[in-house]
Amino acid sequence: MPTGTLADVSTSPAATPATSGTSWVLSLSCPDQPGIVAAVAGLLAEHGGNITESQQFGDPLSGLFFMRVEVAATAPRAELETGLTALADRFRMTWSLDVAGRPMRTLILGSTAAHCVNDLAFRQRSEGLPIDIVGLVSNHTSLADLAAFYGIDFHHVPVTRDTKAAAEARLLELVAELDVELVVLARYMQILSDDLCRALSGRVINIHHSFLPSFKGARPYAQAHERGVKLIGATAHYVTGDLDEGPIIEQDVERVDHSRSVQDLVALGQDVERRALARAVRWHAEHRVLLDGHRTIVFR
Amino acid sequence: MPTGTLADVSTSPAATPATSGTSWVLSLSCPDQPGIVAAVAGLLAEHGGNITESQQFGDPLSGLFFMRVEVAATAPRAELETGLTALADRFRMTWSLDVAGRPMRTLILGSTAAHCVNDLAFRQRSEGLPIDIVGLVSNHTSLADLAAFYGIDFHHVPVTRDTKAAAEARLLELVAELDVELVVLARYMQILSDDLCRALSGRVINIHHSFLPSFKGARPYAQAHERGVKLIGATAHYVTGDLDEGPIIEQDVERVDHSRSVQDLVALGQDVERRALARAVRWHAEHRVLLDGHRTIVFR
Amino acid sequence: MPTGTLADVSTSPAATPATSGTSWVLSLSCPDQPGIVAAVAGLLAEHGGNITESQQFGDPLSGLFFMRVEVAATAPRAELETGLTALADRFRMTWSLDVAGRPMRTLILGSTAAHCVNDLAFRQRSEGLPIDIVGLVSNHTSLADLAAFYGIDFHHVPVTRDTKAAAEARLLELVAELDVELVVLARYMQILSDDLCRALSGRVINIHHSFLPSFKGARPYAQAHERGVKLIGATAHYVTGDLDEGPIIEQDVERVDHSRSVQDLVALGQDVERRALARAVRWHAEHRVLLDGHRTIVFR
Amino acid sequence: MPTGTLADVSTSPAATPATSGTSWVLSLSCPDQPGIVAAVAGLLAEHGGNITESQQFGDPLSGLFFMRVEVAATAPRAELETGLTALADRFRMTWSLDVAGRPMRTLILGSTAAHCVNDLAFRQRSEGLPIDIVGLVSNHTSLADLAAFYGIDFHHVPVTRDTKAAAEARLLELVAELDVELVVLARYMQILSDDLCRALSGRVINIHHSFLPSFKGARPYAQAHERGVKLIGATAHYVTGDLDEGPIIEQDVERVDHSRSVQDLVALGQDVERRALARAVRWHAEHRVLLDGHRTIVFR
Repeated sequence: MPTGTLADVSTSPAATPATSGTSWVLSLSCPDQPGIVAAVAGLLAEHGGNITESQQFGDPLSGLFFMRVEVAATAPRAELETGLTALADRFRMTWSLDVAGRPMRTLILGSTAAHCVNDLAFRQRSEGLPIDIVGLVSNHTSLADLAAFYGIDFHHVPVTRDTKAAAEARLLELVAELDVELVVLARYMQILSDDLCRALSGRVINIHHSFLPSFKGARPYAQAHERGVKLIGATAHYVTGDLDEGPIIEQDVERVDHSRSVQDLVALGQDVERRALARAVRWHAEHRVLLDGHRTIVFR
Repeated sequence: MPTGTLADVSTSPAATPATSGTSWVLSLSCPDQPGIVAAVAGLLAEHGGNITESQQFGDPLSGLFFMRVEVAATAPRAELETGLTALADRFRMTWSLDVAGRPMRTLILGSTAAHCVNDLAFRQRSEGLPIDIVGLVSNHTSLADLAAFYGIDFHHVPVTRDTKAAAEARLLELVAELDVELVVLARYMQILSDDLCRALSGRVINIHHSFLPSFKGARPYAQAHERGVKLIGATAHYVTGDLDEGPIIEQDVERVDHSRSVQDLVALGQDVERRALARAVRWHAEHRVLLDGHRTIVFR
Repeated sequence: MPTGTLADVSTSPAATPATSGTSWVLSLSCPDQPGIVAAVAGLLAEHGGNITESQQFGDPLSGLFFMRVEVAATAPRAELETGLTALADRFRMTWSLDVAGRPMRTLILGSTAAHCVNDLAFRQRSEGLPIDIVGLVSNHTSLADLAAFYGIDFHHVPVTRDTKAAAEARLLELVAELDVELVVLARYMQILSDDLCRALSGRVINIHHSFLPSFKGARPYAQAHERGVKLIGATAHYVTGDLDEGPIIEQDVERVDHSRSVQDLVALGQDVERRALARAVRWHAEHRVLLDGHRTIVFR
Repeated sequence: MPTGTLADVSTSPAATPATSGTSWVLSLSCPDQPGIVAAVAGLLAEHGGNITESQQFGDPLSGLFFMRVEVAATAPRAELETGLTALADRFRMTWSLDVAGRPMRTLILGSTAAHCVNDLAFRQRSEGLPIDIVGLVSNHTSLADLAAFYGIDFHHVPVTRDTKAAAEARLLELVAELDVELVVLARYMQILSDDLCRALSGRVINIHHSFLPSFKGARPYAQAHERGVKLIGATAHYVTGDLDEGPIIEQDVERVDHSRSVQDLVALGQDVERRALARAVRWHAEHRVLLDGHRTIVFR
């Protein structure tokens, strides 16, 4: 089947800016101390870099410093990396350097609900979401046609109590084979084992419904309905061993009223879920999200 | 001290509409069955009433029916009430009839935080919030000047563990003496006893901070900050014995990011709190909020 | 190509409510006068109808009265219609009666941009948007694959200055042949002639970008960017002869900041556009939107 | 009259951070070129400065670079200024250096509407809005009591066609006498002359209502009501000679529906106006707003 064409002339890639060289994104964190920005900016300037956008933040509570820089530079990558490695030693720095706008290799895990998968695939195609969807894994088959339409390889990996370990092993294989940088749980509905969470730490984004106040246990939308909430929300977060409690990347809400049935709340909740997830994935793929202990720094 | 004048020509009372007679608000609820609307509308039509705005809702889960009607009628109040009483018998109806726009006699309970008190008093004065603030009670004295400026009688009712019962007795006395219809806990910070909650059931509105997810225990804004939430919210609700768990009237949120300190979250939270509280008070005073078990029907 | 399956167990149709008979939606408007609600509710009660949800509004400026009723009734349609016709004579009423939840036969007109078309088709499939998409018309071919995936008939109707009249004639033919009730301009980018607007009056919904302040002329997102707006928005409205000035159904906005390029604004604008359009289409299809001169009454 | 006390323990000033020295805010802009950040950060590091928060942005369209730095430094002000002056020469830089959190000396101009004045004064008192309100000027006297309550000097400066020049001269006198850094038009309702706009360029913030689409001419809320808008908004902007067209600092909206009267729209509009104005004033006072031609860069 030919892949659909969703071309939209109005979102064609931006014209190359006038600055010469490659546009890079550098993000880093380290213990806070005087001189970090000077050292980083000095290094970049030495290599002919022109900073086009940058944000810094020092967290007085954790004592950590965070920085994201977009820089146009003519120097080759190896040269920049050598300089950054030396700097990282001096400041005990964690850093990453990437070509700005490079699509991040992303594996999506879904179940039967299509809203988040469709939204990510559509935004990748038409709104310049900088991800390369290298596969869709599901424990069901109902998303196979959607994957086919978007030209995404579909992997059916059933999960039962007995096969859970094998299924997770298959996931890790796929992550390795496909050189996956980011795993998105798009309403995957399966709890990942602690081992898998650890193996993929910082590389898995999940979306789940959120309410004020929160509701524990089964059928949360039914509980929210019963309680008569006036807002329903969604939280996109990194996955850690502690289910649904990982560092928050993005949250959003939608207003509801008494006339909404549980079914309505589910439908509206899906809308919020896909919005919040798409933003979180975009910011992660653009290296805008840095970890500060259990919190995230999001340089939007 | 003379009361301040906050006149604003742009919010002067609306001109009397052309319809003749008094404008009434009728709100009611009863077990759902065919014929309710016909009976109510028929009764009003018999008495020369013209319905200018109305909303109904039948809750399929509780089996209850809710209705709010604004009607212009020339018939005297007693005549309308006689008719409604007969109808209420037939349909096992709970109902209230009030002159539209009549200010509701309201007692505010505060502590030291001024934001909600100032907001309510200001909106009463300048934005037509239909309440008559008949007193401000506080267990501290720091709000006395604010009360004086707005011409509100201030009652200092200290609360300690030993005097709590006496303080609540004094509150009930004030409610009786001042013919109070609505009590607003404007960051009162004291937990009301179950007895007081029961005595004032359905007549007390509280405001408290809300987060996704929610945080229990002390210093909630500090917990929210530590968890890196991206939205902070507030919930206005009726007070029941179950602290902060009464029927929700209104909720709102405000976006925050990593750069906000705990202090910032508190300040932003105050802004959300006063907005949500003001809306809840307005809707209650306009008889737009009806109880449906643990939920509210809000005919906005 | 087989049609994709986007099944989502969590949004399966709601269980049939316990009320007997068919669930109807009645919407009407007429010059305001006493007795309308009583007459309508009385008629419905006579035919065994149970009102489950209803809203009324009398506009003091236009002197018109508006009503929307959801009613479960055992009487046959013809019987209800006979009664309503008599009532309509008496009150000079415009009315419509429809089975609640019946999908409205909808023709989508698009150009090359896929975001609104994809969103409507996806929500129809997975979120219970009550429309039956009977065709997609475009003056380009790039949306054909998308239509095929969703199993929607695609009609390529090119438009040039010379063929515009013929193209519009073809549109009207399709509207007639396919028994179209609603036409949605999903970024169609063609200006409809006055004749076509009149022929389809009240049955065409358009979406366009909106800003505070508004910008006239070409490249509005570029103008908004140059002006440094902090919010970008979209307006869904009925189409009248006066371009982009028809009665507003829904509006929404999204926050932006200085770091957003014109391309970013376009992408964010698409997100707002599809949200606002989907809501407007849903409300129209559910008979929640009534015309009050140049304004809309939206009984949400 | 004694000034009221609005103390709120929960918003007491934050504890002094552990970093030594004074906390400064440096904001600057200059033509973009490589090496700016390195030079600025290097200078600050030389003087023992520790950058705690910083944002940069290079505008590819205007070719200008913008930077805001919060830095804790032990060096005396004169030393920092000497260094910055040299840097500014090299990079053709516009810059300002201020003690972080220092209240900005602010003159408020009002007319009869109290909502914005009350809001600013209240937030200054209770929410840490970093302004020092050195006076309130009005062409009416109705705000005098409000000024008295907040302990603000009130200046009655009537404006008629004949006295407009004299009134503006008096304004400039007050600005000079009171060493005013910021003038806030809090619904002042008078058009400033071009001469006054020029004299105070970049130091005057205005708030006005905004709609999608916008409405020109008198009675904008009535026009918005007639058009049935679903959102009403407000824009805070710098004042230039071109009325209501100066660089936008902040915008916000509020949802409305058909049941709202013109009076309601005015009241809701006031709520949006004071929110947007308070944010704009805060960001300006914290040196977060930089001018980029006709746009603003807001480092929130």
